[in-house]
Amino acid sequence: MTQTALIALDWGTTSLRAYRVGTDGSVIDRIEAPSGILQVPDGDFGATFDRIVGPWLVAPMPAVIACGMIGSRQGWREVPYATCPAGAGDLADKFIAVTSPAGHRVRLVPGVMQSGADGIPDVMRGEETQVIGCLQPDDPPRRIFVLPGTHSKWVIVEAGRIVRFATFMTGEVFAALRGHTILGRMMEGEADDAGAFRRGVEQAGRDGGLLRSLFSARTLPLFDRLPKAGVASYLSGLLIGTEVAEAAAWVGSPHVAAQRPTIVGAPSLAARYREALEVLRIEGRVGPVDAAVAGIRAILAAASTEVGR
Amino acid sequence: MTQTALIALDWGTTSLRAYRVGTDGSVIDRIEAPSGILQVPDGDFGATFDRIVGPWLVAPMPAVIACGMIGSRQGWREVPYATCPAGAGDLADKFIAVTSPAGHRVRLVPGVMQSGADGIPDVMRGEETQVIGCLQPDDPPRRIFVLPGTHSKWVIVEAGRIVRFATFMTGEVFAALRGHTILGRMMEGEADDAGAFRRGVEQAGRDGGLLRSLFSARTLPLFDRLPKAGVASYLSGLLIGTEVAEAAAWVGSPHVAAQRPTIVGAPSLAARYREALEVLRIEGRVGPVDAAVAGIRAILAAASTEVGR
Repeated sequence: MTQTALIALDWGTTSLRAYRVGTDGSVIDRIEAPSGILQVPDGDFGATFDRIVGPWLVAPMPAVIACGMIGSRQGWREVPYATCPAGAGDLADKFIAVTSPAGHRVRLVPGVMQSGADGIPDVMRGEETQVIGCLQPDDPPRRIFVLPGTHSKWVIVEAGRIVRFATFMTGEVFAALRGHTILGRMMEGEADDAGAFRRGVEQAGRDGGLLRSLFSARTLPLFDRLPKAGVASYLSGLLIGTEVAEAAAWVGSPHVAAQRPTIVGAPSLAARYREALEVLRIEGRVGPVDAAVAGIRAILAAASTEVGR
Repeated sequence: MTQTALIALDWGTTSLRAYRVGTDGSVIDRIEAPSGILQVPDGDFGATFDRIVGPWLVAPMPAVIACGMIGSRQGWREVPYATCPAGAGDLADKFIAVTSPAGHRVRLVPGVMQSGADGIPDVMRGEETQVIGCLQPDDPPRRIFVLPGTHSKWVIVEAGRIVRFATFMTGEVFAALRGHTILGRMMEGEADDAGAFRRGVEQAGRDGGLLRSLFSARTLPLFDRLPKAGVASYLSGLLIGTEVAEAAAWVGSPHVAAQRPTIVGAPSLAARYREALEVLRIEGRVGPVDAAVAGIRAILAAASTEVGR
């Protein structure tokens, strides 16, 4: 087996992604297991770790670093949040190590918290590592990141540190509306109608008010102005369009357009967000895959440059 | 039995409300049955009508008028919508009569549809009758109505006719979020914490963006800044506050405040909306109970004044 320098784990709520990284930084092997923290029997994360990752752990022992919800209260060990501004070094400073039953040491990356000017806190676990993994030495002073998902994050980085971020419950709201409201009853098929998606984004851009525009996902098919096979896509467009509009207002609209947000996520979802940004006249770019691995490498490098680690 | 001039039915999705109205216009008797159109076995509305309302139908035969979803495609008979602007006379023009198995004639009030300047149609069935029932001869040229519920309606009346309205999916979104997202897992107890409700409304007023502000219903209890017993009320406040903010923008904010919206609905919900309006610096007033009965009387009177009816 090629020598392993690092095992990087992106261990979230629904899945565990493990990467074996060589001394040159390349990913040699990867495992994706449906062993998210909510799927692990009795919360026995150590045993799960040894079972899935153990075969990779041969001498000389690599570093093992995990980011994501594994460091939450419901995970292996709760790791206190780093606070904004937070860069690679700030995250490395708050590593907490746990040990598996087989004796392997795993360092957990903290999430990031911000208090919020309005007294409303916001938090993330895992996305901070992906963002760090996208940063480059020649970055402009400010970058904007979009991490779509169940709880989408928009993140602003200045001078290599996360200074501000916001969470949008887009994915979870979509699932709840589709599965548990009258809107779902009008739907046929999957959310794969590009034209209907675009119409939903346009409607969100015109309107701004989500509670009102939602009803259009019922009345348009009711009056045969949208095929039922397009309703799921239209609703997806409404929600993602609303997220982009809300986020643009939150960032400050001219900044968003000028700074070309980087979209980090699964390719199909990232493409959908790029489309929504384009409809709303914002040029987005899709970030690297395996950003979590690059982030873990950067955080580990920041840790290693400090004395005594 | 006191002589009956009119049987007025407010027959919606989840319940049937029947009112026996005397010659002087007063409600003599009322029945509320859990026989909404989705609860009637095999859609046999005629038999349900005869069973529940039949005992009231003795000579001299009263008029029988029904409003609500009973006139929808899923109801007794689909009644084509009246279009805006729509007043009592316009609704009476579109009555459609059905006959029950026992031979009783029931006239169904149409709903109202608007095409929408942006090509998005909107519809209501039942609320138009409640609004008509609130109108008075000495009304100002323009009035604004709020009808809270699963699908809240905001309705603008000018010179006695509904000219424009909008639907907000507030109640249904609340139920879906509470029952089927992570927000529900943080909740304990009912939505009866007035202080938490107010905080939610204030947050909605500060923010405007629902997808983002929703996450505060998770992070505030996570950091012990909101008791779990208050989360349901807080979420209710967020949603109702967002509805009011969106509706104020839709009406045109100065108009809303100047024209004191009339809230028509169940007393507890109406009180909650009045509170939300107040937090957002809009003075609301609570409308009459039994507005549907008054509306049916007004529509019937408009029909009777026309020749040949």
